[in-house]
Amino acid sequence: MRMAELSAESGVPVATVKYYLREGLLPPGERTSPNQARYSAAHVQRLRLIKALTEVGGLPLASVGVVLSAIDDHETPHRTMGVVQQELAGTPPKVSDEAAEWASGLMADLVRRRGWKEHPPAHRTIGNLVAALATAKELGQEKLIERLEEYAELAMRVAELDVEVVVGLTSVDKIIETGLIASVLGDRIFAGLRHLAQEQVSREVLGR
Amino acid sequence: MRMAELSAESGVPVATVKYYLREGLLPPGERTSPNQARYSAAHVQRLRLIKALTEVGGLPLASVGVVLSAIDDHETPHRTMGVVQQELAGTPPKVSDEAAEWASGLMADLVRRRGWKEHPPAHRTIGNLVAALATAKELGQEKLIERLEEYAELAMRVAELDVEVVVGLTSVDKIIETGLIASVLGDRIFAGLRHLAQEQVSREVLGR
Repeated sequence: MRMAELSAESGVPVATVKYYLREGLLPPGERTSPNQARYSAAHVQRLRLIKALTEVGGLPLASVGVVLSAIDDHETPHRTMGVVQQELAGTPPKVSDEAAEWASGLMADLVRRRGWKEHPPAHRTIGNLVAALATAKELGQEKLIERLEEYAELAMRVAELDVEVVVGLTSVDKIIETGLIASVLGDRIFAGLRHLAQEQVSREVLGR
Repeated sequence: MRMAELSAESGVPVATVKYYLREGLLPPGERTSPNQARYSAAHVQRLRLIKALTEVGGLPLASVGVVLSAIDDHETPHRTMGVVQQELAGTPPKVSDEAAEWASGLMADLVRRRGWKEHPPAHRTIGNLVAALATAKELGQEKLIERLEEYAELAMRVAELDVEVVVGLTSVDKIIETGLIASVLGDRIFAGLRHLAQEQVSREVLGR
C-alpha cells in the first residue's frame, strides 16, 4: 500500500508517519520509485503499536524507541520483556532516605516470602514499589501497607491470566509483541475495572 | 512551625511551598507578624499529599488543584471520590469510531451483567476502558478481551481490599483523604506487584 493508505489504515496522520520513519521508529517501506515506497500490513501493525504505547500507555516517544529496539533485537522473550518493563516503569519518584530504607526492607521480605526473583534496588519496578510504599507510610496509611501480602496474592492471580494470553503462541516476535500490548493495555484495563468495582463495593459497604 | 520547618518536615522546598500557597493548593498559615506565619501538622500532611499526587500519581498540578478543591468542599465521600476518580482518569485517548462503538457495547454488557452502576459514555473511567479495549481489538489481542470477565472478577476482589482501608474511619475528611491516597498509591502498588508476578509466572509457565 501507499503512504496515504497506510495513514488511513492505521489512523496515524501522514506527517506523523513520516516523522516516525525519520526517527527510525517505523522501518522504511519497499522503494518503488525515487519518491515512492510500498508499505505492508506489518507497517500498519507497527503504527498501531506505537499509537497504543503513546496514547493509551502514555509512554514518551523516547521510551517507545527503546521498547521497539528491544523488540527488533530479537533477544529471548524473557530478556526483551525485562527491557520493556523497565522502560514502562519510568523513573521512580524520590522519597526520603529513611522511608525508602524501610520500604526496601518490606519489599525484600515480600519477595523472599513469595519466592519471587530478587532484583537489585536500581530495578525500576522495585523502585516504584518502594516509593509508593514509603509515601503510604509517610501519609500514615498503615492499613494499605498491612494488606501488601493480600495484594501480592491477587497480583499473582492477575498475572496468571496475563501470561495465558501468550501461551500457545509459537512465534517469538508474536510472544513479545503480545506480552508488550497485554502489559500496557492490561494495566489500563485493570485500573479502570478496579475503579468501577471500588465504586460498587464502597456503595455496598459504606452505603453511600 | 515556621516555613523552614514546614519545608524540612514535608520534604518540599521552600520555593515550592510558597508557590503552592500562592496557587491556593495549600491554605495560608496563621499570621504571627506581617512577614511571618505559623503552620501546623495539617500543612505538613497536605504537602505530603500534593507530593504523592504529583510524584507518585503523576498528576498534573491543575488536576491536583481540582482534587484538593473537591476535598475541601466537604461533600459526601461518594460524591467527592467521584470527582477525584474523574480527575485521576485524565482524558481518554481517541480511537476510531467503529472500534469505540464495539468496545462501548462490550463494556455496557459487562456493567449490566455484573450489576455495576451505569455511567454515561462521557465518564472518563469508562472512556479509558473503551479506548484500551478498542486498541486491543485493533491490535488483534482477542485473548486479552476474552478474559475481561475474569479480570473484572479479580478487580472486585482487589476493590474489596481497597475499601477495607476506609472501613472504620469515622471522620468524613479522613475517609476521603484515605480513599484518595489508597486509589493513587494503590494503582501504582498493584501495577508493580503485577509486573513482578508476571515475571514469576512467565518463568514457570514458559520456562524462560
